[in-house]
Amino acid sequence: MAKNAKISNAVIRRLPRYRRYLGDLQKKGVKKISSGEFSRVIGYTASQIRQDLNNFGEFGQQGYGYNVEDLYGEISEILGLNQEYKMVIVGGGNLGQAIANYTYYYKAGFKVYGIFEINPKLVGLKINDIDVMDYEDLSQYIEENHIDIGIICTTKDSAKEVAEKLCAAGVKGIWNFTPVDLEVDPPVALEQVHLSDSLHSLAYHMNQDK
Amino acid sequence: MAKNAKISNAVIRRLPRYRRYLGDLQKKGVKKISSGEFSRVIGYTASQIRQDLNNFGEFGQQGYGYNVEDLYGEISEILGLNQEYKMVIVGGGNLGQAIANYTYYYKAGFKVYGIFEINPKLVGLKINDIDVMDYEDLSQYIEENHIDIGIICTTKDSAKEVAEKLCAAGVKGIWNFTPVDLEVDPPVALEQVHLSDSLHSLAYHMNQDK
Repeated sequence: MAKNAKISNAVIRRLPRYRRYLGDLQKKGVKKISSGEFSRVIGYTASQIRQDLNNFGEFGQQGYGYNVEDLYGEISEILGLNQEYKMVIVGGGNLGQAIANYTYYYKAGFKVYGIFEINPKLVGLKINDIDVMDYEDLSQYIEENHIDIGIICTTKDSAKEVAEKLCAAGVKGIWNFTPVDLEVDPPVALEQVHLSDSLHSLAYHMNQDK
Repeated sequence: MAKNAKISNAVIRRLPRYRRYLGDLQKKGVKKISSGEFSRVIGYTASQIRQDLNNFGEFGQQGYGYNVEDLYGEISEILGLNQEYKMVIVGGGNLGQAIANYTYYYKAGFKVYGIFEINPKLVGLKINDIDVMDYEDLSQYIEENHIDIGIICTTKDSAKEVAEKLCAAGVKGIWNFTPVDLEVDPPVALEQVHLSDSLHSLAYHMNQDK
């Protein structure tokens, strides 16, 4: 797959959604779908879909539409989902346990290998069969086990230091759940989930149409 | 506070971030901040900040900058955070428990009152002191307790039906954690957190700079 640094982040953000809808269609036994019908299902215009996908090559055929299985496979490959990712969680408090609960059962190639904690009362325990280990051993564990992704679930005050440690130890991506906007140097990738921001946006919209 | 339906969603999405940074500044004892310095801290241009805030009135003074405490308070009010929100979680599986773990300790006025489940093995239990109740009783509970927000943590196949039930029972907002794009009729507000989309975006970016 050609790598194109010019693809906008907005396009990238839509790809997982395309894939989700194609996965649903596949499960319903749909083999092909016209661009008009796909547009209706996913809620983007047919021209938007065409433009988005054109960034990555030729998909679909005039008068035929899209082959659902093929397009699902292509987008999975574009996203890098045809491989396994090894992850660790830093921070075994409520938020870390929450994410461990979630990702442990998360089927699609993202596996949590360990949880790292600074609190000695938690070190040595297991959360959903995942070992809680000493934060002191984080760097060594990442190096020895070729961990790809570090998930940061610490307090906000520790987030920056943890991110630096993860990067230095060689992770390729950071998934940040703390309410801090981190910055990392390329080539490390960064994705931030600010749940409180999401809840606050919801609160705003709830108060607009009273 | 004037209500203005024309304010773009992009502006609304930035407000919680303004508030977070102002909260941090307050904790550091900063009383006022120039627009240039605030710009440097938050990573938006001073003109972007001015434009965003101008949607809601006059903030800041030429040659003085922003009063941190006042602006924090104003944005809190704009977002509707000067009140308490009562929430229920639908779906007591791993994802629901994860969100219960998270929101239970979440200080700022958003309180989980109950978790509703269809699985009889879970009904009657407590998760972090929150009762797990029968999904059959959801509508009545929402009506009797004036629940504001329904958090959907069910399987994707149930999400639409649950959203309809929540809306019919009178919630004002839905926080959707299932990997389904829901639609609700105004005035109900909707906020969707697609964790898998976030993880897939991360995977994409991790594969671009090899």
